[in-house]
Amino acid sequence: MSSPAPLVTLLTDFGTADGYVGEMKGVLKSGVPGVEIIDITHDVPPQDVEAGRLALARYWQRFPPGTVHLVVVDPGVGTARAALAIASADRLLVGPDNGVLSPALLASGARAVRLDVPRQASATFHGRDVFAPAAAALLRGAPLADLGAPHLAPVVRRTPVPARRSDGALQGEVITIDRFGNAVTNCLGVHGGTVEVAGQVLPLVRTYADAALGAPVAVIGSSGLVEIAERNGNAARQLGLIRGSPVVMRRGDAGP
Amino acid sequence: MSSPAPLVTLLTDFGTADGYVGEMKGVLKSGVPGVEIIDITHDVPPQDVEAGRLALARYWQRFPPGTVHLVVVDPGVGTARAALAIASADRLLVGPDNGVLSPALLASGARAVRLDVPRQASATFHGRDVFAPAAAALLRGAPLADLGAPHLAPVVRRTPVPARRSDGALQGEVITIDRFGNAVTNCLGVHGGTVEVAGQVLPLVRTYADAALGAPVAVIGSSGLVEIAERNGNAARQLGLIRGSPVVMRRGDAGP
Amino acid sequence: MSSPAPLVTLLTDFGTADGYVGEMKGVLKSGVPGVEIIDITHDVPPQDVEAGRLALARYWQRFPPGTVHLVVVDPGVGTARAALAIASADRLLVGPDNGVLSPALLASGARAVRLDVPRQASATFHGRDVFAPAAAALLRGAPLADLGAPHLAPVVRRTPVPARRSDGALQGEVITIDRFGNAVTNCLGVHGGTVEVAGQVLPLVRTYADAALGAPVAVIGSSGLVEIAERNGNAARQLGLIRGSPVVMRRGDAGP
Repeated sequence: MSSPAPLVTLLTDFGTADGYVGEMKGVLKSGVPGVEIIDITHDVPPQDVEAGRLALARYWQRFPPGTVHLVVVDPGVGTARAALAIASADRLLVGPDNGVLSPALLASGARAVRLDVPRQASATFHGRDVFAPAAAALLRGAPLADLGAPHLAPVVRRTPVPARRSDGALQGEVITIDRFGNAVTNCLGVHGGTVEVAGQVLPLVRTYADAALGAPVAVIGSSGLVEIAERNGNAARQLGLIRGSPVVMRRGDAGP
Repeated sequence: MSSPAPLVTLLTDFGTADGYVGEMKGVLKSGVPGVEIIDITHDVPPQDVEAGRLALARYWQRFPPGTVHLVVVDPGVGTARAALAIASADRLLVGPDNGVLSPALLASGARAVRLDVPRQASATFHGRDVFAPAAAALLRGAPLADLGAPHLAPVVRRTPVPARRSDGALQGEVITIDRFGNAVTNCLGVHGGTVEVAGQVLPLVRTYADAALGAPVAVIGSSGLVEIAERNGNAARQLGLIRGSPVVMRRGDAGP
Repeated sequence: MSSPAPLVTLLTDFGTADGYVGEMKGVLKSGVPGVEIIDITHDVPPQDVEAGRLALARYWQRFPPGTVHLVVVDPGVGTARAALAIASADRLLVGPDNGVLSPALLASGARAVRLDVPRQASATFHGRDVFAPAAAALLRGAPLADLGAPHLAPVVRRTPVPARRSDGALQGEVITIDRFGNAVTNCLGVHGGTVEVAGQVLPLVRTYADAALGAPVAVIGSSGLVEIAERNGNAARQLGLIRGSPVVMRRGDAGP
């Protein structure tokens, strides 16, 4: 059996209708005929670096070693922000130096190089002219060092806002709202206890199904973080939650 | 020539922006390096089992024998609802036991097993922790029986609401509205005749092009069912149609 | 190393949720088991031939020679409009004769045949019953001439509206608005100068980053055309621009 094809995943905020992603895919297929392209998403809200970072954190290490992750959420295109290629935990990543790649940069042993920007590159579309060609080079087996000089300047690192322990409770906040209206918080979940949010005290239950219809609850989501959810409903809309809304988690045995 | 790669299709209601689908794809590629992943859709409205069922009915048998269809529209995740793997008409399917898989379950000779749920599976994301691993096992060639015990309990089966014959007419309803605003009904089409809907009597024409601009008509759609459509317009919006809106189809020769 | 798999790209206005694209993919995989399917987009606004044409212009020549581009934005399905297969610049294209394929038709040496429509084809879904089977035949290596007779009738060609030179200025218009709210015009960019749009005179800068936050500017976009953009904002919304809005580009040295 032959070895699997070189694999690249794509995350952008381009949408698909304008054809920009089509251009990038053409560059990849022309540069590496046998490459397999996996769409992660093109529906990141325009220029929402934080949403891109949170999505990347979920999937990048679930793909096999050797996978190249191409990540383009790039409000600073055409500025002096660096364009990066990164080797981290046996995966390779390509994208702008604005924090969207932080999940891989923060892993131990990560190495980054600053990509050379060709003179003829469009000043507005590095996805096509800088990042896709760099991904193609890595997919063809080029060593990271061939793509540019080590990036010695401080790299932009975004870290999750940490929850703070205070008065025996955990003071956190909503970090993202998903498509189902679940509000994911920065509190690592422990079973039992309650979560206070939007003036309500919600029980921390095992799963959505332990909630009554229409009654918001807190659950431990699939990344281990506490989420505010509503069974067959939209908790964020019902409670008026947005990114940054405060939450307080209390242990079950911490009662008055 | 080598045999084609193992093939898996994905239908979910997850959207793509949150990275959940990316996680599932990573699990599939790590579990079956040579697998080919085909996106069907991730835009099923959240928790709309019926929409998932109708889409699946369209495509599942159009793929080659041996295809694995992974279908995750799962409002009951974490409850006692069974997780299923199904062999039907030479295809394999994996998803929750809530009716979304009915098109395959209702085919003659279908067999279902109840998937074991690993203890460490997240209570909120069986797509990643139960269904994708089961699909990966099938793609590696595991027999259905290896994935769990035969599912003897009654399986949830959703069947299309049947149209009723009454007074020489067919009494039906709208079963779905598509992206173009075409309202698909549960009436099998026969050429000629009329369709009464929203207080209007529409001619049953051969194709959209037989309609005047701005005038809604009925046509026989690509699944053989009568649809209410408007040439270069949105019939459902114009007529105020929703899922469940009643329609009455009369034969052309049934006149007064 | 074996030669790469036959490659087909898909552009439609079908969305994905209804399962229509799933049906087309099933037809392709059943007809050509080893085919690789690349999604370009299914989010073209319903029946927006012009948007499809503009997207196709961006990507079709970026894919390797031999690629088959399947393009279905087809408001005239079921009418007498021809169904086409085209060979142009070493790529193959399949789609309706309504102008959406113009970027390939207008290239020198393009040849077109009129596809035979099978009697049993649905009158409402040629994507599944006419275009996907034709693409499959081409992907299996069938010569263009096997798919139908040369299309001798005038083919529908859409050409970009040309900008006009007048009074030392270039009179153009907005041809599309992208997901970021950038308004792409039909003016080929030259550095320096100004662009008048919506009653404002904007500087023509090198890249988005040369703009102040909140201040719209003109830049030369990735296709070489002038775009009206706003750094980290939505220029089209701020200025009330739509397709067809007039713009006037003046050279920097043309001042009063």
